[in-house]
Amino acid sequence: MYFEDYQVGQTSKFGAYEVTESEVKEFATKYDPQFFHLDDEAAKDSLFGGLCASGWHTGAMFMRMLIDNLPAEHGSLGSPGINNLKWLKPVYPGYILSVKGLVTECRLSKSKPGVGLVCMSYEIVNQDDLTVMSLESNAFFRCKKS
Amino acid sequence: MYFEDYQVGQTSKFGAYEVTESEVKEFATKYDPQFFHLDDEAAKDSLFGGLCASGWHTGAMFMRMLIDNLPAEHGSLGSPGINNLKWLKPVYPGYILSVKGLVTECRLSKSKPGVGLVCMSYEIVNQDDLTVMSLESNAFFRCKKS
Repeated sequence: MYFEDYQVGQTSKFGAYEVTESEVKEFATKYDPQFFHLDDEAAKDSLFGGLCASGWHTGAMFMRMLIDNLPAEHGSLGSPGINNLKWLKPVYPGYILSVKGLVTECRLSKSKPGVGLVCMSYEIVNQDDLTVMSLESNAFFRCKKS
Repeated sequence: MYFEDYQVGQTSKFGAYEVTESEVKEFATKYDPQFFHLDDEAAKDSLFGGLCASGWHTGAMFMRMLIDNLPAEHGSLGSPGINNLKWLKPVYPGYILSVKGLVTECRLSKSKPGVGLVCMSYEIVNQDDLTVMSLESNAFFRCKKS
C-alpha cells in the first residue's frame, strides 16, 4: 500500500487479536500498574467492573493489527499523531478485537517530497461488534516510484 | 491525589524513564514491528534517521511515569480518552524521558456521583528538554470522602 492506493471513503475491516489475561497483566505490570489492570478481585469494585486492559495496551494491540494488515511491500513511514482517542468500553480478557477503518483525507506532504498523508478514522470492536476504542489517525505513506 | 487536589493552572514535572534499545525492540516486536523500530541499520534510511521507539511505546512509558508519580493512596479511576496526541520527534535509545503537566480543567462528573474529571496538557521531553510527544488527557478521580 502506497499513498496512491488510498482514496477518501475507502473502508476496511481486519484483525482478530485475542485479549488474554496474562498479556493484560504483563503489559500493565510494565506500563500501567493500576489495580483494575492487575488484580482480578479488586477490579470488580472499579468503574470497569472487572480486570481489563490498559488503554495504552489496547492502542498497542490496534497497532499490531494495523501492521499485520499491511502487505509485505508497503510504503508506511510512520505517524505524526492521533486525535480524539476514546476509550469507550473496558477491554476484558477473552475479547477478540478487530479494526474498522475509513479513509477520511489524502494529501501530498508540502515539506516531504514523494510523501503523502493519509487520515483514517478507526473503530476497534470486539467479537460482538461493540466499539471499545475509536480514534483518528494520520500516517505518512511513500508515493509509488514513477 | 483526589479530585479536590487538582486546580486549573497547576503544573508538575516528574519522571526519568531511560529508553533502552532492548526495550524499544521488545515492544516493537510485539506491537509495532516496523523496520525503523527493529533494525538499526535500515532505520538510518527512514524518516527518523535511526532506530526509535514506537509511538505507542512512548505513550506506554508516559503512562508508567504518570502512575509512578501518584502517591500510594490516590483516587485515580482511569481515563475516557486523549486528544491531540502528537509524536513530534523520534525517541531514540539513550533518551531519558520526563513529563511536564498542566491542569487545564476540573469538573465534577454529571453521571458518576463522587467522581470528577481532570483535564491535563502534557509534554514528554528528553534530557535536553526537547519535546518528543504532547497530548491532552482526561482522567477520572474520586472525590475525597466527606
